[in-house]
Amino acid sequence: MSYRAPVEDMVFTLRHVAGLDGVLAQGGHEMAPEDVSAILEEAGKFASGVIAPLNRTGDREGARLQDGVVTTAPGWREAYRAFVEGGWNGLGASAEHGGQGLPHLMAAACTEMWNGANLSFSLCPLLTAGGIEALAQHGSDALKERYLEKLVSGEWTATMNLTEPQAGSDLALLRTRAEPDGEGRYRITGAKIFITYGEHDLADNICHLVLARLKDAPAGTRGISLFLVPKVLPDGTQNDLRCSGLEHKLGIHASPTCSMAFGDHGGAIGWLIGEENRGLACMFTMMNSARLNVGLQGVGVAEAAYQQALGYARDRRQGRAPGDSAPTSAIVGHPDIQRMLLTMKASTAAARAICYLTAQGLDAAEGPEGKAANDRASLLTPVAKAFSTDIANEVTSLGVQVHGGMGFIEETGAAQLMRDARILGIYEGTNGIQAIDLVTRKLPLNGGATVHAQIATMRLVAEGLLKDGSDAFGASVSRLREGIGSLDRATIYLLKILASNRPEAALAGATPYLRLFGLVQGAACLAQAGLAANAALKSGDTDPSHAGRIALARFFAENLLPAAAGLEQTVIGGGSFLDDAAAALAS
Amino acid sequence: MSYRAPVEDMVFTLRHVAGLDGVLAQGGHEMAPEDVSAILEEAGKFASGVIAPLNRTGDREGARLQDGVVTTAPGWREAYRAFVEGGWNGLGASAEHGGQGLPHLMAAACTEMWNGANLSFSLCPLLTAGGIEALAQHGSDALKERYLEKLVSGEWTATMNLTEPQAGSDLALLRTRAEPDGEGRYRITGAKIFITYGEHDLADNICHLVLARLKDAPAGTRGISLFLVPKVLPDGTQNDLRCSGLEHKLGIHASPTCSMAFGDHGGAIGWLIGEENRGLACMFTMMNSARLNVGLQGVGVAEAAYQQALGYARDRRQGRAPGDSAPTSAIVGHPDIQRMLLTMKASTAAARAICYLTAQGLDAAEGPEGKAANDRASLLTPVAKAFSTDIANEVTSLGVQVHGGMGFIEETGAAQLMRDARILGIYEGTNGIQAIDLVTRKLPLNGGATVHAQIATMRLVAEGLLKDGSDAFGASVSRLREGIGSLDRATIYLLKILASNRPEAALAGATPYLRLFGLVQGAACLAQAGLAANAALKSGDTDPSHAGRIALARFFAENLLPAAAGLEQTVIGGGSFLDDAAAALAS
Repeated sequence: MSYRAPVEDMVFTLRHVAGLDGVLAQGGHEMAPEDVSAILEEAGKFASGVIAPLNRTGDREGARLQDGVVTTAPGWREAYRAFVEGGWNGLGASAEHGGQGLPHLMAAACTEMWNGANLSFSLCPLLTAGGIEALAQHGSDALKERYLEKLVSGEWTATMNLTEPQAGSDLALLRTRAEPDGEGRYRITGAKIFITYGEHDLADNICHLVLARLKDAPAGTRGISLFLVPKVLPDGTQNDLRCSGLEHKLGIHASPTCSMAFGDHGGAIGWLIGEENRGLACMFTMMNSARLNVGLQGVGVAEAAYQQALGYARDRRQGRAPGDSAPTSAIVGHPDIQRMLLTMKASTAAARAICYLTAQGLDAAEGPEGKAANDRASLLTPVAKAFSTDIANEVTSLGVQVHGGMGFIEETGAAQLMRDARILGIYEGTNGIQAIDLVTRKLPLNGGATVHAQIATMRLVAEGLLKDGSDAFGASVSRLREGIGSLDRATIYLLKILASNRPEAALAGATPYLRLFGLVQGAACLAQAGLAANAALKSGDTDPSHAGRIALARFFAENLLPAAAGLEQTVIGGGSFLDDAAAALAS
Repeated sequence: MSYRAPVEDMVFTLRHVAGLDGVLAQGGHEMAPEDVSAILEEAGKFASGVIAPLNRTGDREGARLQDGVVTTAPGWREAYRAFVEGGWNGLGASAEHGGQGLPHLMAAACTEMWNGANLSFSLCPLLTAGGIEALAQHGSDALKERYLEKLVSGEWTATMNLTEPQAGSDLALLRTRAEPDGEGRYRITGAKIFITYGEHDLADNICHLVLARLKDAPAGTRGISLFLVPKVLPDGTQNDLRCSGLEHKLGIHASPTCSMAFGDHGGAIGWLIGEENRGLACMFTMMNSARLNVGLQGVGVAEAAYQQALGYARDRRQGRAPGDSAPTSAIVGHPDIQRMLLTMKASTAAARAICYLTAQGLDAAEGPEGKAANDRASLLTPVAKAFSTDIANEVTSLGVQVHGGMGFIEETGAAQLMRDARILGIYEGTNGIQAIDLVTRKLPLNGGATVHAQIATMRLVAEGLLKDGSDAFGASVSRLREGIGSLDRATIYLLKILASNRPEAALAGATPYLRLFGLVQGAACLAQAGLAANAALKSGDTDPSHAGRIALARFFAENLLPAAAGLEQTVIGGGSFLDDAAAALAS
């Protein structure tokens, strides 16, 4: 069964949880409110019709390296060409550079679709999008002039060259060197690893964004500069760089993960982006956009796993479900299977809402709300990235489980989704790094005002539930209030610790805190969707999906959100291992 | 880094948590208390010296099928021969049949080791052990005479032939037919799938235990009989059966998962085990033993993942850890990495203790305690199976995470452990089936007395903590008491629901209940180990591992056990989805 974009759910979430109408009312976008569904329907057709059919063959065939040339899996070139010709690559880029000028929110929904259909394929435009952003914000006019339009169209692609064998999460350790050549260019020498789409046959040129160190640059991260190093130089000659190897990976087999060698013959030619020694700031522009997009990858692959599991559970007959009179029932009727499917669907819907909310912050930052919205997006970005990809691991694993023994057989495809998803919590900053970012950099934003304002929006939803008073929400209002209480107390505790004489103690609880944040924020979002659905029901709208949205919000509140209290206890009371870990890990 | 059997931890758990000394004092075993460490040290050497080195190559090479012949991975035959010659196969079998006559507890520790070293390899003897048990308990004297000794020695191996394409969890649907041939034998015809080691080159004969249906047998599970169908007949000719295919799987590549065709040429010859139409009861003998052993597989692979992650975290240097003065620290010094490693170690230790406790019940059932001990083992078996394999999925995934990007690269080996582990929650009864077994069949044992007696043993540990009063346990006593309270209330609730007019409602909370049980039981076991360690410290024993055991118990209590309250809430308040699921899953 192939991926089908859940356009109706997406539009409902965009409108009723993530404030798309408000974003469109800000103006400045090349679309009208009535275009939303049509655009997403069209994107959905492309995702399921063109990209999704390549997902299984891509996994089997993978990308191949021979004599420095990387050949993508069969069908990849044609699909990428169709992607570019359809104008899908420049969806979020500004019209000034040839893009479609759609809001981040619309781009987010499409990114989710591409990745639900095929993670390996969609990584290529995902990396290009990051490159576009870094170049648009930090590149010189000359560089923008030369590269931006072709990146926006997708005729050329971009990469992020950060990692080296000794420098992963810790970029301070990187060694790739850059030397000015006296003509305004630089010569780059060094080896990079884990470079996604570092080499491929989808485009005529690849713009490598490379972090490197100038001679005499300060040690650490304040001595790193960012360079644009194209595969093909403006004069049409090949630059001094090559793909030296492809990794053999657990998943995303069709996405070539390259080792790159720069400067075997005197140095690859590159151009500085931004200022010397300020490369990390420029790279963070890419990283932040990429982090939200990785969160959306998680949502997409989780949705795909849910759809496949649901399809299987409706077909597969084993045992007799409660209340069924037939000798055997479709397993979707068994309570334990229902629990798994509902966990998959509710977790995915919660992660989707959190990612869209983050994109909304980026859109609203361009409107009258300005900085406060941007800070909100900054706060939510690590949650969007880590919560969505954590649940992607869980949901894809549940997808395998729903299939029983068939889930372990590769031909079924459920296992591939689990293998593919496993990278999402690791790249673009591991989820541990996201949790540290959330706690040490995002909670203190504006002296804690940003996080407290966000928690206040959750309280508004709880008040809405109380006011609605409908039995259909069950214990949602109590659970949500308890969850918000847990999040609030854990937040206050961490802010206090950060201001104490042992701020590093906050790191001990960072990961459970991020989970707590994601759970409560997710529950609030689903409840908000449920309230909108109930309002529609009350106004006479008989669409059966409304009852489903209320039931899903209730399931999340009654079955997943109860973990909040334990997470609070862990954040606040679990840190003693900072002193004990060495002893416990010694034996 | 290769697996090393954690003999010291095993012996400590066997003695101080699982009552090995009491079992040995019962008598009847072919070993003395002072042999424990020596036997396990020797087994550990075999596991890490002979079996573990084949794990990576086995994954890469897999098993191959050509012209009906299955060839195992390079080195497999030699290692299996050494396993047999070392007498390891018959460790738990009674001396009467040529076994070593060791307690279940000792066999359990060894099973954990074999599987920590190499899941794919160790599945073969695991299946044979189940066959031995079914044959010893239900086989005729003639069958036992002919097959038992060679199975116990390992010269021949056994399989379980249950699954058919339409009959997985629901064995009532199976169609393989058996007809008496008038000479006391039966002709078996049908197709089986997912048969582990259904064909291989490790042994001269394979004894297939096959579930089939006699003509005119009652429909459903009361019309199923069990047959022994050997690959090679007593007269030395080949039986009418063959391996018709090998599955292409997510993991355990070196374990051949076979489709089996019985009776292409008139029917494979088989002998009845037990009575006609009572095959399921006989098969459950195998299944129960196999379920505990699958739990031990989970413990073994989790231990292997922990060891590998710890080794990597000690070597890999990134960033500066709190309190470190060097410019970069080994990542084992970072709080978030410590949290992951401690979660891995504590979860593994808890699962180990639960599995050993289950084995202890089987041993004690042969002594003066008798039926009560057997009932305890029955209660704990689904927890041992499902909790241990759930945490195996989590721990092996954390093992990937600790490795960062390297974890996603297959050569590292961390990903293999995750792939291999993924089958454990599926086979031998999915973990959902285990949860249903726990709730609907095990809780009601003796009117609930068995489960309440087990909870009482946990309370004794909490009282022990209170009495000990040592600061080193932190909030363990409060957390454990709260956890026991949650388990107790959830148990009472489920027993009440089971006796109500809607007993199926208990199924809605079965999975979170099993998790709750495992968490609280695991916490009690680790606390008990911690108390024994503290007693040793107080008595002047300065072994540094004692402080580590206390710290590990504390970590579990303060960081993992807090999930108990939320699970209780989910079990008791989460069941509304029984009515809502259809609506929520409709869209």
